[in-house]
Parts: sequence; structure tokens; C-alpha cells
Amino acid sequence: MDCLATLPGIGRKTAERLALHILHAPDTEARSLAENILALKKNVTLCATCFGLSDRPTCRICSNPARDAGTICVVENPTDMAAIEKSGAFSGLYHILGGALSPMDGIGPDEIRIKELFVRARHRSTREIILATGTDVEGEATAAYIAEQLKNTRICITRIASGVPMGGDLHFVDQVTLQRAMEGRSGL
Amino acid sequence: MDCLATLPGIGRKTAERLALHILHAPDTEARSLAENILALKKNVTLCATCFGLSDRPTCRICSNPARDAGTICVVENPTDMAAIEKSGAFSGLYHILGGALSPMDGIGPDEIRIKELFVRARHRSTREIILATGTDVEGEATAAYIAEQLKNTRICITRIASGVPMGGDLHFVDQVTLQRAMEGRSGL
Ligand SMILES: [Zn+2]
Ligand SMILES: [Zn+2]
Repeated sequence: MDCLATLPGIGRKTAERLALHILHAPDTEARSLAENILALKKNVTLCATCFGLSDRPTCRICSNPARDAGTICVVENPTDMAAIEKSGAFSGLYHILGGALSPMDGIGPDEIRIKELFVRARHRSTREIILATGTDVEGEATAAYIAEQLKNTRICITRIASGVPMGGDLHFVDQVTLQRAMEGRSGL
Repeated sequence: MDCLATLPGIGRKTAERLALHILHAPDTEARSLAENILALKKNVTLCATCFGLSDRPTCRICSNPARDAGTICVVENPTDMAAIEKSGAFSGLYHILGGALSPMDGIGPDEIRIKELFVRARHRSTREIILATGTDVEGEATAAYIAEQLKNTRICITRIASGVPMGGDLHFVDQVTLQRAMEGRSGL
């Protein structure tokens, strides 16, 4: 229980529930869980180029010649990358920052992989950097910081659109998003 | 119960629960509910200009000289109007269509207040029409139809921004919205 409770997002209550579940589970299930945890540490590494999760030094996306190497989509973490990848809307490469700027939490530019992004930006092939960090305060600040740092380069810096999510009724949308949707309106 | 069950969105189960609630409620509460229902029918009317809910022939927004009469925000229903109004992002006038185009349900342009919008569009003061219909298929089709009909006028036709809602993590966003956010990205 103490060990489980050290995991992020798992409190004492959840740790107790998990421990009891494992206690009552068949031996095979407990063993499979333990083996998977060890295999994760042994087999999964970070891609040397994009810092995404990978089972080899350079990940399947970075080493795929069919991907557009001229466009880099910058995300905060591997889960965001997976979501964009699943949407099928992007065929370039990624750059996983490993977080967002958050001065309050002591996370400055050196704490996430921003320098590594600037190194990639210097490659002659890089045409566009799409900032797909979150739309919360930290994600917006991170996008603004990167855009500011790269403003005097020949690279096109873009930001994913924010506004009303698709398929929804307007009155279910929060006020800040409605403000953004109104300010960000564009000609038809 | 039969009477309550005829209301939209109220099934037999909910009607039964409501009826029991009213049965057990104090007399004053039941009387207040009945009186409010009658007052609603007696006092609330539709504004002759925007078709929003009003307690007078022309609503407080349409008759407020401080509002920008040159900009009309088109919404599907009064709830959407209330949401935008609450966000504080808009200071013009509204036009409430009373629904969205939906050929499958037999709702064509004549079934909602599109003709009335075109009449307002002919006013010399009208500079911009903001299409704030929903982001579902019907809302998008309604916006496209209105934009098409007004394309050869001098009025600026705009659409509220759609994309990732504010304050969120990318991986909580559905795939269609992520696609839209990626396609709709803009330079920083
Ligand atoms: Zn990679
Ligand atoms: Zn009105």
C-alpha cells in the first residue's frame, strides 16, 4: 500500500483498493502486472529526436520516411501526441516537451525540452512548427514563449485553433471558450 | 402524470417523480409553480426584432441604444443567446432562428427564422453577421446556408471559432475537434 500510494494520482484510499484487488486476484494476474512493469522499464525508452515513447532509439514516427519532416507538432506529453495521432489530422513529426512552463511550480524553459526544440528548428528542412500545447494558462504561456523565441526565424509558427468543440450546443460551452470563439471568429 | 409526461424530455419515470414531489410539497410551492406557469404564458413574448424571449414587444437588448446595431449574432435558440450574453464577449444584437436546418426532420429554411434574418440584413446599418449556430451537423449546415445566401452582399459574414475548448488538456478532446483544431491553426 505504501509503495502504491507513492504513484502520482493514487491516494491512500485508492492504494488500499488496489492492494486488496491484487491480494484477491489470481496469481497469474499479479505476476503479469509485475512482469509488465519490469518490461516497461526494460523496453520503453524515449526517442532521441522527438522524446516520445519508443521501443528503439529513434521512434517509428521519426524514422518513417513517409512522414513530412518539415512540420513539427509540439505537444506537452505522449498522451497528447497519441490523441493527435489517432485523429489522423497530422502527418508530420512531433516534439514532446515533457510538460509546460509553470513558474509557480518552478518549471522554467530549462525544465522542459525547449532547447532541444530550438536545435530541431535550426534544421534546414523545418518549415512549420505547430504549437499544440494545452489551452490552459500553462499551455498558452508555453506556446507564447516558444513563438516569441522563434519569431525572427524563417519558420512559420502556428497555433492549433481554440473555440467551440465540434458536435456541441453552444450553451454547454464555458464562458472563456465562448469569449475565445467570438474573438477568434473568421470570415466565411 | 400524463400531463407532465407530455413535456419534452420528461419520460414516464420522471413524470412520476415530479408528480410525487408536487404531492408532498407544501401548498405554497405547488401554487407558486402553477402561478409561474400562467405568468410565463401571460408575460413572456417573443421580441419582434430578434425573436428572443421578452416581456415587451421589443426586448431590452434590441431597444438598448448602447448595443452595436451594426453587428447581428445569429443563434439557434434563446439558451445559446443567454450563454453568449453571459460570456460578455458580444455587444451587438442577436437573431434567434428558433432551430437549425435539418432536412431529415423536415426543417427547411421556411421552418426557422431565416427570411426574417435576411430582412434585417437589408438594413443599411448591418455591417457584420456572426454565425453562432451549433457545431453539430445541423448547426454547421445552417451557417453554410446563410453564408451562401448572403455572399453577394456587402455584409461581412463570420463564423465563431471552433477548436479545442479553453483550459483543457488536448487528450480529453474528441478526434473531430482535434482535426478541426489542426486544420484551423493560424499563425502566431
Ligand atoms: Zn521520435
Ligand atoms: Zn430583441
